[in-house]
Amino acid sequence: MARVLKGKEVADAICERLAKQCAELKEGGVNPTLCTFRVGEREDDIAYEKAAEKRAEKTGVTLRRVVLPAEVTQEEFDAEWKRVNEDPAIHGILLFAPLPKHLDMERARETMNPAKDVDGITLSSLAGVFTNTKTGFAPCTAEAVMELLRHYGIPVSGKKAAVIGRSLVIGRPVGQLLMHENATVVNCHTRTQDVPEITRQADILVCAAGQMHCVTEEYTNPAQTVIDVGIHWDEEKGALTGDVDFARVEPQVAAITPVPGGVGSVTSSVLMAHVIEAAGRD
Amino acid sequence: MARVLKGKEVADAICERLAKQCAELKEGGVNPTLCTFRVGEREDDIAYEKAAEKRAEKTGVTLRRVVLPAEVTQEEFDAEWKRVNEDPAIHGILLFAPLPKHLDMERARETMNPAKDVDGITLSSLAGVFTNTKTGFAPCTAEAVMELLRHYGIPVSGKKAAVIGRSLVIGRPVGQLLMHENATVVNCHTRTQDVPEITRQADILVCAAGQMHCVTEEYTNPAQTVIDVGIHWDEEKGALTGDVDFARVEPQVAAITPVPGGVGSVTSSVLMAHVIEAAGRD
Repeated sequence: MARVLKGKEVADAICERLAKQCAELKEGGVNPTLCTFRVGEREDDIAYEKAAEKRAEKTGVTLRRVVLPAEVTQEEFDAEWKRVNEDPAIHGILLFAPLPKHLDMERARETMNPAKDVDGITLSSLAGVFTNTKTGFAPCTAEAVMELLRHYGIPVSGKKAAVIGRSLVIGRPVGQLLMHENATVVNCHTRTQDVPEITRQADILVCAAGQMHCVTEEYTNPAQTVIDVGIHWDEEKGALTGDVDFARVEPQVAAITPVPGGVGSVTSSVLMAHVIEAAGRD
Repeated sequence: MARVLKGKEVADAICERLAKQCAELKEGGVNPTLCTFRVGEREDDIAYEKAAEKRAEKTGVTLRRVVLPAEVTQEEFDAEWKRVNEDPAIHGILLFAPLPKHLDMERARETMNPAKDVDGITLSSLAGVFTNTKTGFAPCTAEAVMELLRHYGIPVSGKKAAVIGRSLVIGRPVGQLLMHENATVVNCHTRTQDVPEITRQADILVCAAGQMHCVTEEYTNPAQTVIDVGIHWDEEKGALTGDVDFARVEPQVAAITPVPGGVGSVTSSVLMAHVIEAAGRD
């Protein structure tokens, strides 16, 4: 039986700290404000928007929602995007991705005010992740993984970590964050041969493959901590699930995060931490 | 007996290609120009400056040298730095590092014109390396490693690569470049436990530890390609040498770069390639 590393406990601890910081900022006349920026009605976006709303309420962050119709023109999008990027009352912006195909994501990224990039999508933020300098913010999910490890006292320094996935949203950034904390890190990807042989050697396995239940017990070892970043809808069971086949893996490892209730629960708290930090830098 | 991967052959092939490109640019009225920027009289800097001069001559790149005395004030440095960064006739700048301690390297980095950053020291260039986009240029030595592998037809995609070192000058960038070419990469560093056990599993081993002869045969396997990025002065032998104990490693691996005459010889050619590319973007 593995130790199940629940996200709620971590999120609660972060939110408690943040509520104090937020109150202090407000006393000083600064009102930390996040703007969620959504185009269309994708279910995933709406779910994350709701989670953000709940966390904002808990921490005292003010939330402003921008919702544009899926058929918005590039010109209309650009105008609204410019407005929120220039609005001095907004400290952080969360842009839901992917955008509908007719809209230019690259342009949105390039024209984002880097100071408001609380989910690490601009080049400036990603440069900060790579160089380990406080330039911008890391993608929230990558940082949520680190918060979770820290909260549960899982040692990282000097340990071996394997990350399945190399996306800029999670795989590559979390690999860098782990290395900055002195883990020895390997990023596995679609072109990696014999992934299980590599991941079995790791003390920490971060699964960000984006494929339901692709990680089975043969990827793991009994001393391993498994962090599941995946989130999928299991049609058969009618429930959310992760990259990890929990039923098979959980009995074979030392610690594991559940889905739902694992990393995902921490992500929105990290988002609030970034908004409050951005507001504090103001 | 390993195949010895000499740098000269690679450098010559690159220079031949560059000479043509440079001639074409000149016909179009653009005169690709590199400015080397040196403070003081460090031997390493002067050696690299000379190598750059030779390559510039071979490829047709114009070289301008800035040499400031070691005791230059910050104000004097800043003024000259600003001048070359603003000079429209200069396409690329190579700043020799480290600077004397009384000068602010961070400020130099931050105020560098990213378009002229032909050795990948700005955040903008490093963001490009991390995100695999054509933003700026990779550090020349990291790219020289890739050129060498390409020239000698060493397969990278789907292979395992180990990098010893995680500096921003070479270890981390070369790890990313290898991953972009679909290798599965691990960066070992000072906090990695049992480095030889990890590096022995690699098809490609890049040694950028910065310690003379620290890599011995126990780090390798018989099918391995070993790329030595180190450069040290061996007092005993009165000769340049690398991170790899060549005499011990060479008989035990499939291919290996010598020092001198390996990666180092390719680096200055990559530098010229960057200058010509920067000039072409103009």
